[in-house]
Amino acid sequence: MDDEKRTEINELGEFGLIDFLTKNNETRNAGTILSVGDDAAVVDHFGKQTVVTTDMLIEGIHFDMAYTPLKMLGYKSVIVNLSDVYAMKAIPQQITVSVALSNRYSVEALSELYEGIYEACDRYQVDMVGGDTIPSPKGLIISVTALGEVAPGKFVTRSGAQTNDLLCVSGDLGSAYLGLTLLEREKKVFLETKGVQPDFEGQKYIVQRFLKPEARKDIIEFFEEKQIQPTSMIDISDGLSSEILHLCKRSRKSCVLYEDKIPIDDGAKQFAYKLEMDPTMCALNGGEDYELLFTLSQKEYDKIKDNTDITVVGYIVDEGPKPKIITRGGAEHPLVAQGWNPIHVK
Amino acid sequence: MDDEKRTEINELGEFGLIDFLTKNNETRNAGTILSVGDDAAVVDHFGKQTVVTTDMLIEGIHFDMAYTPLKMLGYKSVIVNLSDVYAMKAIPQQITVSVALSNRYSVEALSELYEGIYEACDRYQVDMVGGDTIPSPKGLIISVTALGEVAPGKFVTRSGAQTNDLLCVSGDLGSAYLGLTLLEREKKVFLETKGVQPDFEGQKYIVQRFLKPEARKDIIEFFEEKQIQPTSMIDISDGLSSEILHLCKRSRKSCVLYEDKIPIDDGAKQFAYKLEMDPTMCALNGGEDYELLFTLSQKEYDKIKDNTDITVVGYIVDEGPKPKIITRGGAEHPLVAQGWNPIHVK
Repeated sequence: MDDEKRTEINELGEFGLIDFLTKNNETRNAGTILSVGDDAAVVDHFGKQTVVTTDMLIEGIHFDMAYTPLKMLGYKSVIVNLSDVYAMKAIPQQITVSVALSNRYSVEALSELYEGIYEACDRYQVDMVGGDTIPSPKGLIISVTALGEVAPGKFVTRSGAQTNDLLCVSGDLGSAYLGLTLLEREKKVFLETKGVQPDFEGQKYIVQRFLKPEARKDIIEFFEEKQIQPTSMIDISDGLSSEILHLCKRSRKSCVLYEDKIPIDDGAKQFAYKLEMDPTMCALNGGEDYELLFTLSQKEYDKIKDNTDITVVGYIVDEGPKPKIITRGGAEHPLVAQGWNPIHVK
Repeated sequence: MDDEKRTEINELGEFGLIDFLTKNNETRNAGTILSVGDDAAVVDHFGKQTVVTTDMLIEGIHFDMAYTPLKMLGYKSVIVNLSDVYAMKAIPQQITVSVALSNRYSVEALSELYEGIYEACDRYQVDMVGGDTIPSPKGLIISVTALGEVAPGKFVTRSGAQTNDLLCVSGDLGSAYLGLTLLEREKKVFLETKGVQPDFEGQKYIVQRFLKPEARKDIIEFFEEKQIQPTSMIDISDGLSSEILHLCKRSRKSCVLYEDKIPIDDGAKQFAYKLEMDPTMCALNGGEDYELLFTLSQKEYDKIKDNTDITVVGYIVDEGPKPKIITRGGAEHPLVAQGWNPIHVK
C-alpha cells in the first residue's frame, strides 16, 4: 500500500466511490446484458443453465492483514468462488462483489483490493456486474457471488461416483497449508524481533499457493477438449481427506486412497521436513489448495494418462467399509475428516 | 429468543449445522435444478434472462440487536434483495444466504434468523439454494444474493424515463424512518430508565414498516396483468429524493414533484407531528420503505388510475433545470440528495 497518500472513503461520497471503483470495469461476455449501476444486473446464458455460488471472507477468520497484500486478497476472494463454479464443470461468467470495511481502510486500500478483483476477472474472463461497498464497524469483509454457465444437464455434482471409478486430483496438494505455516511463523518472528524482515526466499511457490491461488480453468478446458465427463467432482478447499469423505458420502460409496500417489510439490515436501511436518498430513488435512478432486470411469483412463497435471490417487469401492488410505509402508488407516479450520486470528 | 436453551454452534459441527438449517428447506420452482449441498447450485431460467443482485447487512451499521428480533431480521435481509429484483420488473426465483456470526449467537438464535429467511422464501415463492454459515470475530453479518427471471429485454432500468412521463410511487413513504425513530427513542428511554418497557401501542404499522418490510410483488403482478411497461424504475431504499435524483441522472432528464401528492400514511403523519418532525422530510430523506418509484407514459394513465396503491407524484421534464419539488404553499425548491445514512450504531 502506498503510505504517502490517504484518501478517506467518505471524501468521495457514495456516487464518487462507485464511479471510482468501476471506471475501468470492462464487460467481456455477450451474456452480460446489464452491468453495474442499476437495482440489479441482467445476464443471459442463452439456453445454458446457470451455476451460482457464494463465499464470504472475513478479516481475522479467513485472512490476517499482517501478511495479506490487499491486491492478492481481492484476487483470492474471486478465485475461491470461481473454483466452485469449475467444480461443477461450468464456466464462470459473472461475479458480484460486496465489500464492507472499517474507516481504518482508505480509498487507496480499497483500490488495491479492487485491482486484485479486476486482475482475476481479466485472467478468468468474467465480468464484475454488481455489488456494493459499505461501512463495517470492524475489519474487512468480502462477499463474492459467482455465476457460471453449463450446457443443460452437463454439470457434475458430488454424488455421481460409481464403484471402480478412478479417484483423481489435479495439481499438487498441501502447499497452501505450508505457505500459511511459513507466513504465521514469520509473523511471530517479526512480532518478537522487531525489525527482522520476513525471509520467503526459495519458498515463493508455497506462499503464492496460499496468498494468490488459481482456479483450475485449464482442467475444465481439458475435459472439454477430450470430451471427458467426470462422474463426480468437488474442489479441494478443506483438505483432501475432508473432500474425499464428502464425495463418498454424497455418492453413497467408499474408496481406497494410496499415500504414495498423492501429488506433493518437491520444494514443499523439503520445507515440510525442515519443519518436522508430515507432507502427507498437510495434503490430507491442510486446506485452500483449490485443486479439483474427481472420479472417472476407468475407460476414460487413456484420455488422462498423459496429462501430468492429473494424478490417479485411488479408486471407488462399494459403500460399507470406511474410506481408507494405504500408507507407503502398506498399512491401512481410515480417512479422518480433521477438516480445515480457518485461521481464527484473535 | 428462547433463553432456556442454548446450544453452541460448534457443538453441531459443520455438517450438522448445514443439515439442521436446511432440513425443512423446500424447492418450489422448476428452475431450481440443484439446490444446497454441492459446490454450487444450478438454476435454469428456461429462455428467460437472469437478474442478479446482492446486499449485505451488518450489525451495528444496518441493524441494532437491541430492538431487532432475529426472525424479522432474516425476513428483511431477503426482502431488501427481492425488492431490487422487482425493481427490474423481474420475478425472484432463488436466493443464496451467507451468514457470519460471533460465538455470542447460539444455534437457537441462528435458527430464528433462518425461520425469518424461510418465511420470506415461502411468502415470495423463492428457493434458498446455497450459501454458508461461518464464524465472525464480531457481530452478525448477512449477505444475500437474489436471482430473478424476466422475458428477454423486458427488464426495466433506471435510465429509460421520457419527457412528460408520469412519475409514480407505490404504497406510502416515510413510515419506515418514523418506525426507526420510535425504536431509537424507546431504546434510549429503556437504557436510561431500567425496567421501563417500550410502548409501541398504536404504532405497530410504522414499526413493522422498518423491522419487517415487504417487497412490491403485487405491483409487478399488476403491471403484468395490465400489460404496463414502465419506462424506468428503481426501488426506494434511500428516500424518495435520492431515488428521484438517481433516476433523473441515469435517464438524463429532470422532473417536477408535488409535495401534496406524496403518499404518507395518516397514522405516521400524526406520529411525525407529535415528534415535531415534518412528514414530507421523512418521505424525502428517510429510507428503507422498499416501495417502487417508476415512470410511465401518460397514455398508460387509465390503466393505473383506479389502483389505490399507485400515486402519481409528478412528471418528467427535459434535462436542464434541476429536479424540483413544489410545496403545498406553491414554493419551488430543488430536490436535495440528503440520502439515507444507515444507523451507524457505535
